[in-house]
Amino acid sequence: MPFLDWRISIGLHPMSLITVGTMAFDAIETPFGKTDRIVGGSATYVAYAASNFVTPVQQISIVGYDFPQEEMEELRRRGVQTDGVEIVADKKSFFWSGRYHADMNSRDTLVTDLNVLADFDPKVPAGYQGAEFLMLGNLQPRMQLNVIQELTQRPRLIVMDTMNFWMETAMNELKIVLRYVDMLMVNDAEARQLSGEYSLVKAARAILAMGPRYLIIKKGEHGALLFQQDEVFYAPALPLEDVFDPTGAGDTFAGGFIGHIAKTGDISFENMKRGIIVGSAMASFCVEKFGPTRLKEVGKKEIHDRIRQFKDLVSFDIELS
Amino acid sequence: MPFLDWRISIGLHPMSLITVGTMAFDAIETPFGKTDRIVGGSATYVAYAASNFVTPVQQISIVGYDFPQEEMEELRRRGVQTDGVEIVADKKSFFWSGRYHADMNSRDTLVTDLNVLADFDPKVPAGYQGAEFLMLGNLQPRMQLNVIQELTQRPRLIVMDTMNFWMETAMNELKIVLRYVDMLMVNDAEARQLSGEYSLVKAARAILAMGPRYLIIKKGEHGALLFQQDEVFYAPALPLEDVFDPTGAGDTFAGGFIGHIAKTGDISFENMKRGIIVGSAMASFCVEKFGPTRLKEVGKKEIHDRIRQFKDLVSFDIELS
Repeated sequence: MPFLDWRISIGLHPMSLITVGTMAFDAIETPFGKTDRIVGGSATYVAYAASNFVTPVQQISIVGYDFPQEEMEELRRRGVQTDGVEIVADKKSFFWSGRYHADMNSRDTLVTDLNVLADFDPKVPAGYQGAEFLMLGNLQPRMQLNVIQELTQRPRLIVMDTMNFWMETAMNELKIVLRYVDMLMVNDAEARQLSGEYSLVKAARAILAMGPRYLIIKKGEHGALLFQQDEVFYAPALPLEDVFDPTGAGDTFAGGFIGHIAKTGDISFENMKRGIIVGSAMASFCVEKFGPTRLKEVGKKEIHDRIRQFKDLVSFDIELS
Repeated sequence: MPFLDWRISIGLHPMSLITVGTMAFDAIETPFGKTDRIVGGSATYVAYAASNFVTPVQQISIVGYDFPQEEMEELRRRGVQTDGVEIVADKKSFFWSGRYHADMNSRDTLVTDLNVLADFDPKVPAGYQGAEFLMLGNLQPRMQLNVIQELTQRPRLIVMDTMNFWMETAMNELKIVLRYVDMLMVNDAEARQLSGEYSLVKAARAILAMGPRYLIIKKGEHGALLFQQDEVFYAPALPLEDVFDPTGAGDTFAGGFIGHIAKTGDISFENMKRGIIVGSAMASFCVEKFGPTRLKEVGKKEIHDRIRQFKDLVSFDIELS
C-alpha cells in the first residue's frame, strides 16, 4: 500500500486520531426524568462516537479516583487508548449538574465542581506523537492550546469544539487557540456571541477571519451548517419523536465527524459534508437515552440505517426547464 | 396531446389554479427601515410567486376603492385573472401594520383594519370552475371553506395556509376546513399550537389525523418539513446575509409550491419535494426587499440560479462500507 507507506515514511501515524477533553460525571434533569451521577464529559462522548469509525482513538483527559474502572475498560475494548488519561488518586472527577427547559434548547447549570480539572496540565504521551488528526473537545482554551503546543508534528486537521462558558470567562485565550486550528465547531448562539453578528452568514465570515479555514455551526434540531470561504453546506437534523437528553449531543457530533474524517483520511470539503452526516447520525442516537447509554448500544448496522435515513430525508431531484 | 385531452374530457381545466386570500395594504417596520402603506396580502404574494410557473392564476379576493389600478394591471400582465377579485366602491382595502423584532422571527401587530374583509363573501366565477388546483391563502377559515363549497368539482389538490391568529379566534372553523383539504401549511409555532405537541414529529401525526394527507411545517431560516403518513422530507433554507423584510415570505413559499405543482400536474410526494424547493427559492427572494418588490424583479434565470444554489447547498454523496 504505497499511500500508507508514504505517510509512514514522513512520520505520520496513519489514520491516527488524538482526542482531548473532559471525562466526568453529570447529573441531568430533563422533562423526561432525572439521573444520579452518570458518566459524561466531552472526551467520553467523542471517544464513544469516533471509535465506531477509527481505532485507535488516542484519548487525553484527566479523572479522579472515583471514575469507574469499568468505563475505562469499556472504552479500551472499543479501541480507545487511555495512556493519556491522567488519574489523580486523591481528587474527585469533574462534576456538572444541569436542568433542561421544556424546549430542550436551553438549560440551567446547577453545579460545576471542577475538582481534578482545576489544575489539569494535559500531556501528550510519546506514543501519540505523529497523529494525523486532532479533536480538541470542549475544554478550557488554555488546555486545548497546551496540547497543540505539545505536539512535535502538526496534524493534518485540528478541529476545536468550545462553548459559550469559555467566551464569557476566557475569550482572549479562546481567540488565541482559534489561530492554531483548522476548524471550529460551535452552536448558533455561540457563533453569534463570538462574532457579534446575528446573521449566521456574517457570523461565519467574521469567525473564518479569526483563524480557522472551516466552521461548523450546530443548530440542534435545525441541523448543521458547514462554511468554508465561499462555500456552504446545510445538513438537516432528523426530525425526532422525542429528544430525551441532549447532553453530549454536540460532543457526539464532533466524534462522529472526526471519526469519519480519520477513517477516510480525506479532508476535502466534499468529505467534510459526509462527516457532518455521520456526526448528525451519531448525535441523533445520543439524545435517545440519558448520557452515553445509547452510544454504547448501537452497532454498524444501526448506524448505517440511520445514515440512510438522513439521505432519504433530504434527497430530491429537480430539473430546470 | 391525449393526456390533456383526457383531462378536458372529464371536465378538468388543465393546469388551472385558483388562489384565494387577501389583497391589501401593509405598513412594515423592520430593523432595516420602515414603509408607508405598500401593497401586500396573502393572495398578492401567492399570485406573484405562482405566475412564474403557471398561468392563468385565477385569483379570488376583495379590495376597496383605494387598491391601485396599476397593481391589478401588473398582475394581469403576468397572467393573473382578476374576475374573482371583488372591488368595493365605498370601502377601504384591508390594512395591516406591524413591527418586526431584531431577530426577525417575531413581530408585533400595530394595526389591523379589516375594512372590506369584514363582510367578504367569496364567489367563484363560472370561468374558474373545473380548476385542478386550489390554493387557500391565509384568510378567515370560514371564507376558505366557502370557496371549497362553491366549487362544482373537487380540485385534485387543495392546499390551505393559515396562521396563529385564526387558531386563537376561529379554531373550530379552522378544524372544519382541515377536513376538506389535502395539505396544510403552517409554521413550527403554529404546528405546536394546533396540535398541542412540542415535538414536530408528534405534532405532524396529530395534524395529519385532523384531515389533511400532507403537512408542510415552515421553519423560516431553518427550512421546511414535508410530512405524509410515514414519510418526511427536510428542505433547508438558504443561509442569507440579511433578512430585510419577512412579510409575505410564507405566502410566497405557498405560491412557488403550488405554482410548481400546477405547472407539472404531478402530485406525487417526490414532486412535492421539488415544489418545496421552488417555494423556498421564491421565499428567499421575497425577504430581500420590502413587500413584493423583489418578486416583481426576478425572472426565469434568477429563479433557476437560486434553485441551483439550493441543490448545491444540500447535495452530498455517501457510501456505506
